[in-house]
Amino acid sequence: MYSCEIISVGTELLLGDILDTNQRYLSQEAAALGIAVLKRTTVGDNIERLSREINSALKNNDLVLLTGGLGPTADDITKEACCACMGFELKRDEKILRKIEDYFKNKGVVMPPTNAKQADVPFGEGANVFDNTCGTAPGAAIEKDGKCVVFMPGPPREMQAMFEKSVRPFLIKKYSDGVILSHSVRTVGIGESAMAERVADLLDSKNPTVAPYAKEGEALLRVTARAESREDAERLMAPVLNEIFKRLGDKIYDVDSSGLQETVVKLLKQKNLKVAFAESCTAGYLSKRLTDVPGASEVFECGIVSYSNRIKMKVLGVKKETLERYGAVSAQCAGEMAAGVRRISGADICVSVTGVAGPGNDGDIPSGVSYIGVCTDDGVFTERFETKKDSAREYNRYVTSSRALDLIRKQICKNSSNSV
Amino acid sequence: MYSCEIISVGTELLLGDILDTNQRYLSQEAAALGIAVLKRTTVGDNIERLSREINSALKNNDLVLLTGGLGPTADDITKEACCACMGFELKRDEKILRKIEDYFKNKGVVMPPTNAKQADVPFGEGANVFDNTCGTAPGAAIEKDGKCVVFMPGPPREMQAMFEKSVRPFLIKKYSDGVILSHSVRTVGIGESAMAERVADLLDSKNPTVAPYAKEGEALLRVTARAESREDAERLMAPVLNEIFKRLGDKIYDVDSSGLQETVVKLLKQKNLKVAFAESCTAGYLSKRLTDVPGASEVFECGIVSYSNRIKMKVLGVKKETLERYGAVSAQCAGEMAAGVRRISGADICVSVTGVAGPGNDGDIPSGVSYIGVCTDDGVFTERFETKKDSAREYNRYVTSSRALDLIRKQICKNSSNSV
Repeated sequence: MYSCEIISVGTELLLGDILDTNQRYLSQEAAALGIAVLKRTTVGDNIERLSREINSALKNNDLVLLTGGLGPTADDITKEACCACMGFELKRDEKILRKIEDYFKNKGVVMPPTNAKQADVPFGEGANVFDNTCGTAPGAAIEKDGKCVVFMPGPPREMQAMFEKSVRPFLIKKYSDGVILSHSVRTVGIGESAMAERVADLLDSKNPTVAPYAKEGEALLRVTARAESREDAERLMAPVLNEIFKRLGDKIYDVDSSGLQETVVKLLKQKNLKVAFAESCTAGYLSKRLTDVPGASEVFECGIVSYSNRIKMKVLGVKKETLERYGAVSAQCAGEMAAGVRRISGADICVSVTGVAGPGNDGDIPSGVSYIGVCTDDGVFTERFETKKDSAREYNRYVTSSRALDLIRKQICKNSSNSV
Repeated sequence: MYSCEIISVGTELLLGDILDTNQRYLSQEAAALGIAVLKRTTVGDNIERLSREINSALKNNDLVLLTGGLGPTADDITKEACCACMGFELKRDEKILRKIEDYFKNKGVVMPPTNAKQADVPFGEGANVFDNTCGTAPGAAIEKDGKCVVFMPGPPREMQAMFEKSVRPFLIKKYSDGVILSHSVRTVGIGESAMAERVADLLDSKNPTVAPYAKEGEALLRVTARAESREDAERLMAPVLNEIFKRLGDKIYDVDSSGLQETVVKLLKQKNLKVAFAESCTAGYLSKRLTDVPGASEVFECGIVSYSNRIKMKVLGVKKETLERYGAVSAQCAGEMAAGVRRISGADICVSVTGVAGPGNDGDIPSGVSYIGVCTDDGVFTERFETKKDSAREYNRYVTSSRALDLIRKQICKNSSNSV
């Protein structure tokens, strides 16, 4: 398998002025091409340090991908460093120079003299210059003795356009022996380590590989196969995925979903069902997450954020006695909130959340404790939910809204299995 | 000047599964402390490669900051690599072990045996263990022969909490001669470059330094002074801050606020005012953000997420004719929504949002366009708001909710100046 290192160049990156999204983009693209990314590096606009990085990357890898440092100013030195390390020379390309001049002419300004520098490109055997369709700085791939260095502009828009048009085809021709495919099995309601233990033996598998990851209040298994074709890769993964499904059962909420909200909206659309929410402690977080999904309007009727008891009574019809006797953070209140928003919305599945987001406890109720109510044709049920002790307010609200989404998922699946 | 290298650990990063935001966060924090970041590196869960990186980073720098690879599974090896490179040993800490066991007990499950590994920490002289207030994996700083390695958990929430509570104070004590103080002047409604231009001359100042940052739909200036004492640092910053206030005027919404929502809740409490929301396109995002602030219950009455037209009419009393004649995304609808939620809540300042979140336009209304309504004793006013062209759904919803929060801020300040 071929290996590569990704190098980002720019002092502004090291200062944290800019969030580097190029490294992730190139990591994903390399993985898709079956090229292993062994390392990523970020260095400033310093030709000694950059050259040192390029040389060590060339020693350990077949391929080095660089972005940034192709601007017109004196501290843009990526092109110079790459050519020096690979023993290539730069030569002014008149055609490119004219392109850059036109680019400025079209903007109604004369090209600043410094920009001429951007028309200098590596030349000779092994030099492949790449056109920049969104800017002035060309890129290039320079090859020698089985090693290859590719440099691209730093602005993501220019870099991605060049990668798709020129770099990817170039890399496929040179490096792509087969494909790498991945599936993410997403679980909720089970910790990363508990999940990993249930599939411990599978984690040693080599092709496909199986790796556990934790995501706020969720855990996922990434199954990755390398093969000649997509079909072969899928064939390799199928038995492992089936085994994982068997072991983790309904802790799994989806495969390759971007999150619980996407899965829930998808299921609601499939069953042609509508939801509505009554939120107290999550206070809009549940509605916000569901509507993160484009097209949620097809399945989402309304959300009532009843933060004060007055609104719980006035809008949702929670009984005064209920609040006095059991308090707002109680199964009884959750039940009446869910029933109340069902009366208002007529939605098929109505969910309420009332709890203590923290920081700090509410009387004798610890922060992180909540009651979730679900009201459907089958009536109302409630559950007590508790997040990790001493969790932050944001985490409590997020994980509680995740639990609410998961209860909706289970409700839909229950209904559908009934309807079978 | 001290120098450092930042190392992220995780195969999932090299595969591009996750966008690494830790490196940027640590770059900004190091810069604020006057520590030069010479290089950033990302390596996978491979102990040989990681150890090689740590050793070369130690050779060239005083300090190495690592994140990730502290999980309970066998492929989490950051702690082991750091201790090996620095010649420290790991020892089971019974107190931490009990903390982790309790953490699982509180979730009603038995701790998976593998998690015990997270209670192993470096010990002896030069080992400083850092508590993890948001998760199970502790961090640490280990010092030897004038070199220091700090490792922190990978999840940004856990890492940032640990950095603020433990790592920053540790670094300030060790690496900043005297004290370094910062103030963040937070602005909204002006782009980063426009903001920077207004204070261009101040950006060259050496002590205090003035650096512009962009944050989703906001721009901020971080003013940082190095001095013998806090008082001296404040004295150095005062004139620069005053100049910035003069130049940016009411584009500035606060100093050292964690965000618009915190500032708005603070102002509402000061004036003893209550707010209520009627949200369509933001669909709970506005309520969620206001209630991110602990104690928001004092100032927040309710939010109505009226996603369907039926609910706009039934709950908020928007007129059928209004929807038919002007559509749901109109100044007229926004006005009636704001008036409607005021009737329900009786809150002092009632704000409505209706717009097109995207992706894609809604008929002839481009995505990113919204109408915001404000209803107070003075009556109702509405404004048309538009985000950057071709922005993503999440960005549109976030920035639109920011605009709504800023209108509340302006309303409060207007009222208060009236009352003067």
